[in-house]
Amino acid sequence: MARIAVVAGDGIGPEVVAQARKVIDAVLPGVDATEYDLGAARWHRTGEVLPDSVLTELAGHDAILLGAVGDPTVPPGVLERGLLLKLRFAFDQYVNLRPSRLWPGVPGPLASVKPGEVDLVVVREGTEGLYAGAGGALHRGTPAEVATEESLNTRHGVERVIRDAFARATRRERRKVTLVHKTNVLTHAGSLWARAFEAVAAEHPDVTTEYQHVDAAAMFLVTQPQRYDVVVTDNLFGDILTDIAAAVTGGIGLAASGSINPEGAYPSMFEPVHGSAPDIAGRGVADPVAAVLSAALLLDQLGHADAAARVTAAVGVELAGRAPGAALRTEEVGDRLAGYATS
Amino acid sequence: MARIAVVAGDGIGPEVVAQARKVIDAVLPGVDATEYDLGAARWHRTGEVLPDSVLTELAGHDAILLGAVGDPTVPPGVLERGLLLKLRFAFDQYVNLRPSRLWPGVPGPLASVKPGEVDLVVVREGTEGLYAGAGGALHRGTPAEVATEESLNTRHGVERVIRDAFARATRRERRKVTLVHKTNVLTHAGSLWARAFEAVAAEHPDVTTEYQHVDAAAMFLVTQPQRYDVVVTDNLFGDILTDIAAAVTGGIGLAASGSINPEGAYPSMFEPVHGSAPDIAGRGVADPVAAVLSAALLLDQLGHADAAARVTAAVGVELAGRAPGAALRTEEVGDRLAGYATS
Ligand SMILES: CC(C)[C@H](C(=O)O)[C@@H](O)C(=O)O
Ligand SMILES: CC(C)[C@H](C(=O)O)[C@@H](O)C(=O)O
Repeated sequence: MARIAVVAGDGIGPEVVAQARKVIDAVLPGVDATEYDLGAARWHRTGEVLPDSVLTELAGHDAILLGAVGDPTVPPGVLERGLLLKLRFAFDQYVNLRPSRLWPGVPGPLASVKPGEVDLVVVREGTEGLYAGAGGALHRGTPAEVATEESLNTRHGVERVIRDAFARATRRERRKVTLVHKTNVLTHAGSLWARAFEAVAAEHPDVTTEYQHVDAAAMFLVTQPQRYDVVVTDNLFGDILTDIAAAVTGGIGLAASGSINPEGAYPSMFEPVHGSAPDIAGRGVADPVAAVLSAALLLDQLGHADAAARVTAAVGVELAGRAPGAALRTEEVGDRLAGYATS
Repeated sequence: MARIAVVAGDGIGPEVVAQARKVIDAVLPGVDATEYDLGAARWHRTGEVLPDSVLTELAGHDAILLGAVGDPTVPPGVLERGLLLKLRFAFDQYVNLRPSRLWPGVPGPLASVKPGEVDLVVVREGTEGLYAGAGGALHRGTPAEVATEESLNTRHGVERVIRDAFARATRRERRKVTLVHKTNVLTHAGSLWARAFEAVAAEHPDVTTEYQHVDAAAMFLVTQPQRYDVVVTDNLFGDILTDIAAAVTGGIGLAASGSINPEGAYPSMFEPVHGSAPDIAGRGVADPVAAVLSAALLLDQLGHADAAARVTAAVGVELAGRAPGAALRTEEVGDRLAGYATS
């Protein structure tokens, strides 16, 4: 039986995670879930972000389900570097997977895009690039200050995530992979990405490929999101592009993500893209759809493709039935989703 | 009399630049313009990108008007690093200015945004960050390859562009500046930007300020572009955000830019954001509006605020009068704009 670590976190995290667990329990009874208290609240209380003992315990699970961590009073970087990125790096979660669909029933912001037309997935590199934490400062706080941030890219790291993107593309209908980088300015890293991409593409003659600079891709995600199938890109570009993709498909309130170690040597982690939303926390009005879709990615990763498909289909029913602008209750949405997924 | 260097460049560059010059001549007769042959065509013919002698001659001008350079057969980086970025760095053009307006008459892609509601300007740093060219590779072409790109940020460079952004905000109605960075991950550079921003903000109590992470800003540019007035950000974030801003206001076909050395120690450079568009080159169908708006920025920078305002107003008349989907002829648009600007 699958062993899942649950990090509900702060703000609306616990509210949406409760619904995700409800839906998981409905489609896959008997999952063994253990709660871990991590996030802003724990940091405020104890000063701890991620004790080594907890990291070791987490490593013993099949997957991690995370709600949201953080609040505005925690200094920037503490929870990001100490918890979220620490887990992505410690567990070698090199595939940061972010699907975006414009679901029927969801009013997207784009006038010319119809529901059902957008169905893309961004495969964002998760363990390298500007997220490596390589950087520093000299003469800090003086007029002579210089601060650096270094993007580190290895053939090892780049090739494996590109391979994952092609593997995903071969399982999809359109079989297309778009590489996004900025090869005309970031010439060293760009050349590495472009050469690794060409090499993997040569092994997949059945997959259509294209390359776009990140600025052009940011634009086309707004003007023609329909054109994308699988997008593979580096850590920082992926961070930005996935928020645009979320925006054009109804907002981060619906966006799911997985930080995946495809080999299963370490647990993968699944979380909604949205944050802890302190402004609406505790009121039972947060939309749990992103958390539930993240649970579907978790189920899929653990080999329960059928259960995952039932959860995804349930979300489709839920969203298609929503009246524009109608208020929602977190728990009621969770109940409905559990019902649709098992009926 | 103003001395302008004109780099018409490749593809549609010469076609749109001709219209920009026509409009400049109409509102400010007697400008002394010298053509320089630079770009892909020259590189193919001679192997030269930017000879030192030409750089020295360009330095003797008051401003540079550029059309577009490049074609798909030039390897990535050659013209970018050798010409465009070389000029931005050599002429210390640290303010990369990119206004975005949703003009009445232009069908934007966003269902809920009405013409006139979006009027923002991105002040992008132009001489530092990941564009510094600091990076390299080891074990190139082997499985052990590592490639790096380094973002260099100085207090000097960051503070001066933030000062420029605040100065622009005080001349605008809403007086608001948004800093965009990624302080939660790029903690060294982010801290430098945040501290410099706070220091300059403290000197401008009349300006409203806010901070956003780049991923959030990318999203809000799609969902609520109305909320921005002046946005200040680093070189790479600015590259991406300005293409999103262009996309939500009708496309890069309308987007103007200036690479500005505010002190006037070196010439500033003005160019449409679009590229050389080889697919439509030579057919007289390229829209010259972005080039003409770039000419307006040029006129403004050279102290001809009235002439600049007349050109901008002419663009407003032109765009308001366009029938949706109607074909346009580059020359006819230029003639109309020159007429509107002088009537
Ligand atoms: C919170 C932050 C570290 C994180 C990132 O930048 O990856 C977030 O924006 C995301 O996209 O998951
Ligand atoms: C061509 C390229 C070097 C340039 C940039 O990245 O700055 C372009 O995208 C721009 O925005 O002016």
